[in-house]
Order: sequence, then C-alpha cells, then structure tokens
Amino acid sequence: MSFKGRDVVSIRDFDRKDIDQVLTTAKLMEPLTKAGSELLKGRISANIFYEPSTRTRMSFEAAMLRLGGNCINITEPRTSSIDKGESLSDTLRVVENYSDLIVLRHPLEGSAKLAADLASIPVINAGSGSEEHPTQALLDLYTIWREKGKLDGTKIAILGDLRYGRTAHSLAYALAHYDTELFFVSPRTLRMRREVLEEVGSRIKVSETTDISTTLPNIDILYVTRIQKERFPDLEEYQKVRGAYRITLETLREAKTGLIVMHPLPRADEIALDVDRTSFARYFRETWYGMVVRMALLALVLGVV
Amino acid sequence: MSFKGRDVVSIRDFDRKDIDQVLTTAKLMEPLTKAGSELLKGRISANIFYEPSTRTRMSFEAAMLRLGGNCINITEPRTSSIDKGESLSDTLRVVENYSDLIVLRHPLEGSAKLAADLASIPVINAGSGSEEHPTQALLDLYTIWREKGKLDGTKIAILGDLRYGRTAHSLAYALAHYDTELFFVSPRTLRMRREVLEEVGSRIKVSETTDISTTLPNIDILYVTRIQKERFPDLEEYQKVRGAYRITLETLREAKTGLIVMHPLPRADEIALDVDRTSFARYFRETWYGMVVRMALLALVLGVV
Amino acid sequence: MSFKGRDVVSIRDFDRKDIDQVLTTAKLMEPLTKAGSELLKGRISANIFYEPSTRTRMSFEAAMLRLGGNCINITEPRTSSIDKGESLSDTLRVVENYSDLIVLRHPLEGSAKLAADLASIPVINAGSGSEEHPTQALLDLYTIWREKGKLDGTKIAILGDLRYGRTAHSLAYALAHYDTELFFVSPRTLRMRREVLEEVGSRIKVSETTDISTTLPNIDILYVTRIQKERFPDLEEYQKVRGAYRITLETLREAKTGLIVMHPLPRADEIALDVDRTSFARYFRETWYGMVVRMALLALVLGVV
Repeated sequence: MSFKGRDVVSIRDFDRKDIDQVLTTAKLMEPLTKAGSELLKGRISANIFYEPSTRTRMSFEAAMLRLGGNCINITEPRTSSIDKGESLSDTLRVVENYSDLIVLRHPLEGSAKLAADLASIPVINAGSGSEEHPTQALLDLYTIWREKGKLDGTKIAILGDLRYGRTAHSLAYALAHYDTELFFVSPRTLRMRREVLEEVGSRIKVSETTDISTTLPNIDILYVTRIQKERFPDLEEYQKVRGAYRITLETLREAKTGLIVMHPLPRADEIALDVDRTSFARYFRETWYGMVVRMALLALVLGVV
Repeated sequence: MSFKGRDVVSIRDFDRKDIDQVLTTAKLMEPLTKAGSELLKGRISANIFYEPSTRTRMSFEAAMLRLGGNCINITEPRTSSIDKGESLSDTLRVVENYSDLIVLRHPLEGSAKLAADLASIPVINAGSGSEEHPTQALLDLYTIWREKGKLDGTKIAILGDLRYGRTAHSLAYALAHYDTELFFVSPRTLRMRREVLEEVGSRIKVSETTDISTTLPNIDILYVTRIQKERFPDLEEYQKVRGAYRITLETLREAKTGLIVMHPLPRADEIALDVDRTSFARYFRETWYGMVVRMALLALVLGVV
Repeated sequence: MSFKGRDVVSIRDFDRKDIDQVLTTAKLMEPLTKAGSELLKGRISANIFYEPSTRTRMSFEAAMLRLGGNCINITEPRTSSIDKGESLSDTLRVVENYSDLIVLRHPLEGSAKLAADLASIPVINAGSGSEEHPTQALLDLYTIWREKGKLDGTKIAILGDLRYGRTAHSLAYALAHYDTELFFVSPRTLRMRREVLEEVGSRIKVSETTDISTTLPNIDILYVTRIQKERFPDLEEYQKVRGAYRITLETLREAKTGLIVMHPLPRADEIALDVDRTSFARYFRETWYGMVVRMALLALVLGVV
C-alpha cells in the first residue's frame, strides 16, 4: 500500500508491512541528516500543538527542515484564534489551505481522527489524549531494530506505569507484529490494561511481573517509563514504588551483556544519571532515531519516496 | 505605479489600478502554491504581532515560505524587549536591520502608518487598531473576482456589525472602485457609519436594510461578519439580533442560484455548520485566496514581479 | 587556530588573533546580507532561550537564515518539557540530536559553560547569567572597527552601571587586546569592578571619572549603558544620577567631531530621542553589525569559512 496522502492517526492502523516500510525508509533518511536534502523543498508542514511538547515539536520541525521543507507553527493556542471561540475543525479547515500536511498534538481523545477525517491533506498525530502517539511507537521500534539489528527474536521488558502510560500501550501493540517476547513490569496497581494484555498475548508471548531484578537477566531491551505521583493514594506508597523501579548502576548489575535501556523522555529520576555514561544508555540516541523516523513519515505521506 | 518599496498601510491608499495589479499578480501566484518558487529566496520578513492573530500570521508566513523566503517572528511582545520598556519605534529600527520587510499587527490606531514612516524597508499592515486591515479587503476582492469572474456588475450584501467592524468598512471602500452595488444589512444600532455610507454612496449604488431575507434574492455575494455581544446594552437584545442575522440552510432558501457566502473568520455561530457543506460556502476557500494575495503583495513590494 | 567545532562561551577565551579573525570574517559577510548565501544550507541552529530576549534571538535567526540555514526555537521554556521536570542537561542532550549547533540564553551563571562541555556540537552563548554575553562584545568591537576604521588608537568612554553591567565588563576585557584608552564613567556607587579595572589597567591606559562632560572632548566613542532603578537605595538618588548621565543634544555639544554614540539596547531614556537624528547615533546601525558578526561566528564554528 502506498503511503502517499495517508494519515498517521494510530499505531493500530499499521500492519507489519507498513511498519517495515517506515523502518526501511527511515534507514534511507539517516545519511540525509548530514548531507541535507531537497526532497521536501517548497513543502510546508503546519505544526499545531494544543499542548506544550517541546521535544516532539522540535523533532518534527528538524525532520521537515532536514528534508528541505518548512514549518508554520501554532504553539500557543490559548492566545490564538481559538481564544476567539474558533473550533478545532474551523482551524483545521483554514490551516489546510496554508500547508501540505498537518502535525497535530491535542489533549482530547479522538482529535487526530477527527482532523484526519476533516482535512484534505495528510494529518500526522503527534499525540492525542492519553491513547495514541504513533510516531513514538515507530521510533521505539526503529531504535530496537537499529541497535539490535532485528526485531524478531528480541525480548523486551516494558517497565513503569503500564496502566496509564500511552507509550507503553502503543509499543506493546506494535511489537506484537513481530516475533518478540514481552515482560510487563509494574507495581500491582499500575498493571498493563487487560485489553492490551489479551490482544498482545494472543499474538506473542507475554508475562507480567512486579520485579525487575529477576527479569533483567532474560531481556535484550529495558524500556523504562515514568511513574507519576498522582497515580498513588498517598506519598509514602509512591516513594516506595518509585524506589523499587528506579534504574541505577546497581540494578543493572543483573543485566545481560548487550542490554540496552530506552526511555521516551523526558525523565524525572526513573533512571539514575550515572547510567547515562554506560553502554546501556540509548535514551538520547533514541531522539535522533525519532527525527529520522519522522523524516521517513513526512516523505512517505507526501509521496516523495 | 511600481509597487517596489511601497508600504501597504490602508486600503484607502489603493486606487483601482493598484487593486487590479494586486489581483492579476495574485492570479500568477496560484500555480506557485503547488510548484514552489524561489522568487523571494534569501529574503526575510519580520512578522511582528503585538496582538494574537494566528490565521493572519500563518497566512503571511505561508505566503513568504511558498515564495522561497523566510520569516522571523515576534508573537509574544509581552515577554519580549517591549517589556524592558522599549518603544515600538526603537523595536522597528532594530528589526529593519534584520529583515527585508516588516509585517505588523498592532492594537493602536495609526501604528502601521508610524511604522511605515519610520522604517526604511516596506511595511505591510496586518491589522492596526479598529480601522485598517488592508490585506483582508484585498483578499475579499480577490475571492469575489476569482469566484464570480468579475467585480464590475456584482451585487454584494455586507451583513453584521457595520458600525464597529473594520473589515466591513475596508471592503466597502475597496468595492467602491468597481461598478458594484452594495447592500448594508445590520441591526438599527449597528448601521454602517455615516462617513463610509456617504463616500461609498457617492460612487456606487448603496442601500441600507435591517432585513436579510428580502435582500437575498437580489445579491451575488453575501459577506457575513460578526456581531459582538459587547455592543448590546442587554443580553436579551443581543440574543434577538443574533438570531435574526444568523445564516442557516433555512435562510439561504431565498438565495439566488450561484450566491456565494463569505466571512473573514474566525466565526462564532453567525453561519450554521450545515452551510459548510453547501455550494454557497466560500469562507474556507477565502483563506487560500488570502495566502495567494499575500504572496502577490510580498512579491510586489519586494520588487520581484 | 581553527574555529571549526569551537564553543563561544566567554569573550575571555578569545585572544586578539581570534577577535581579528571574527572581525575580518564578519566583513566578508556584509555583502551576503543582500545577495543571500547558501553557506549554511541544510544546517540547523537550535536557539534555546530560557530568558526572553527578542533582539538577540532575532539577530541569531536572521544570521542563520541569511546564510541559507534554518532554526528551531525554544522560546518559552516555562511551558515546555522543562516544566515536566526535565533538566537543562537532558534538554541539551536531546536537542543536539536535532541540530548542528546550539545558541543558548540562560539566566544561570555558568550555564553556557556547562552546555559547551556537555554537547557534542558547538554551543554559542547568547547571554548567561550576569557575567557573559560574548557576541555582544564582539559586535561592539566590530562596530568601532567599521565606523572608525581601526581599533588601535581609539579612545572609548564606557558610561553607566559599570558595577553590574555585563556588557561593560565584556567590552572592557575585549578592548584591552587593542591599543585603546578607556574612560570608565559612572556614579560612585556603580564604579567598575576592581578585578576588571586591575586586569584591563595592566594592559592599557584606563581612568575613572564620575563626570561625562569633561570626558567628552577626549573620546572617539561613547558607549552608553543602562542604569537600573533597582541599584539605588531610594528613588531620589536614582533620579539625580539618571539625570546626570542622560545623553542629550546639550550633553553632546562638548563632543569631539566624529564622536559616535553606541548602546547595547534596549534603551530606556539614557539617550534622548533627538540624538537619534544626529550623526553621532550608531546604536541602531550596531544591530546590523550584530547580525553580521553572528553570521561570521555561525560560519566559523560550523567550519564553512
């Protein structure tokens, strides 16, 4: 299937062939980050961010610029025409006249779907509500593929808040297209949602645990996510959990050789700073892969590759 | 007269020949929105917005980028050097050193004139105070011309707050250069200002009415503007008026075949959503014409066409 | 020494040869401000401004765009991922993956040094804490060199708050590399810091005074800086000082022919508006030189000249 004109709303709209196409295209983009490119010369991306998300916005902007394109940005919708009572759909119907594609971040569930249905140009979801952030899942897969040389045959632990973390859900769905084994590591109160567990478990081997130390020797990738204070009834409970799931040099003693640690960022203190200097750390490298994956998506939906 | 180096402060500085030149240049710009262009390669527009106006800013940015130019933006003057007590004139005398033209939006009457007098590079007024918004009037004319194939011989109703709406005034002045007939449709308390009525009425046929339904069968273009709550002594009066001037499918039953509905946007609920899907609606298309007209103005004042 | 890959953290890291190289490179940049250039085509500057500074940001942006490069900007760190608790060092390690160099403005002392140590790409300090603003010092020197045709042999008065003004300190250090004579003119309570006075005085002739009128006949350049209200115990004292150091047409009657008046901007009322129209005024021209100097620095650290 051609990507030209396609919307990128949910990782669940991507089958294995789609994902493979994004990954192989991303690899072609890597040399262009240094050499520059005019693939998207004259094209404009409208980046509409109804929530602050500096990293994601910069990543999309850099991707567009690296390909010779340009961006127009709405980053403070509170002081824009939205203030004058304009609806999201009216904004989109205006902005589609100024640009060749729309990158949308919006706090409401379903907003990216609405935008995709409405706009006559491609829409890429840069995070909508608590459910979907498809480009994050794609860049996570790309990082694993590039760092491990493969996706099939890898064993991945996803650690942290698996109940509320959208990154964890999207990643699990995406990995289920490959012959992987997943370990869901979380406090009992933040276990992976039943529907994700069932669907993913019907396709690949999954297991749940509350203990990272017994899991570490068995995995190739440790994917760390945030545990938020707000999820806990009292501070004491939160402190206890936070301590148990914090990744330190000490924790990583149990790790298999070649283990890599990933994180969608920004981190608070889920990963100790001294891990940054080790060969485990891939969470900053991940942001570079993210730009590359977004270059691929932009080029694909605009039909230039 | 050559446009090179010219300021665009007020629609009243434009005679018919000027407007015709903008419109015909805009038509030349249309294919460039797809094909791209390097007409303004290396040129920088400084977009200084002392009021939020996302659509207008994006329209100017997109116009500049489509022509291969670039922009530097000030969009939050409250947290900029203006905070440190810098005057508008000092800001302009700095910014003219960084750019090739200035696009200025400012809440004060006369600010664009001041800027134009002061700056050694062209200044385009993107809205100053409650009086002037010349590029809006030009894009309105361009929309009529492109959609109707002509300006002479058209009959246009301007509906809404004709007392305070700057868009309505500028449009009336601009249309008076052509052999048009105008119908001013408004509540009695928001009638078109006497001075506009007299000047425009001295050149073309105008009439005033409070009733849209008897006007609709006679017009080719219905130009809808906002009626603001703040203009009314009490809420009850406002609700009554708002209802009477709201455009719905029902209202449009009386319309002549081929009538087009325009609106400067953003809209609140002056036009019902189900009108969007009809062949009457041109208010979103209008924003595309707006970008094209701004491309023409940028190219003209920078002397590349 | 080659500039390629070099960080620009402090003017004190620059010897005379370095400064000369920046100045002569800047001169080569001047024609490119009109003709355009593709020297930095495909390159991206990440402009991270943790403090509002519209002029400095626009100057760096314009410099990058004039050379064919592009920018991604963080200008509101309060509503960005910094809000989510991300540290400056994590932000930098992300942003270096999106860009070819970092321009950083940060309120904390030492932040630019930290960034330079951490990032694998060049970092240019656009103002850190109250100590360093190296590109301002370089553009001040460039303005003198271009307006006077030389640095050696010039006599310069630096006037205003010499105790707290970082611009004054950096400029004094930079001028000490040349055979110049400096006059520090300030109220008694805001005298030049001892350490600056000693170091600069060990290399060139310096003198201190509280009186501008007796100094004016002896100098070629009058460099005016701001005196801030907050530095004074009471308002009455402030008003008195402010009046005594305000530059007016009257003050300038004592000036030598050919004297030029400079100011880092923004000004409050340290220089009367009627001075703007005289041949003394160079403070707006200075901002153009500033863009040119930044073009030179960008081209140098990215290794294209």
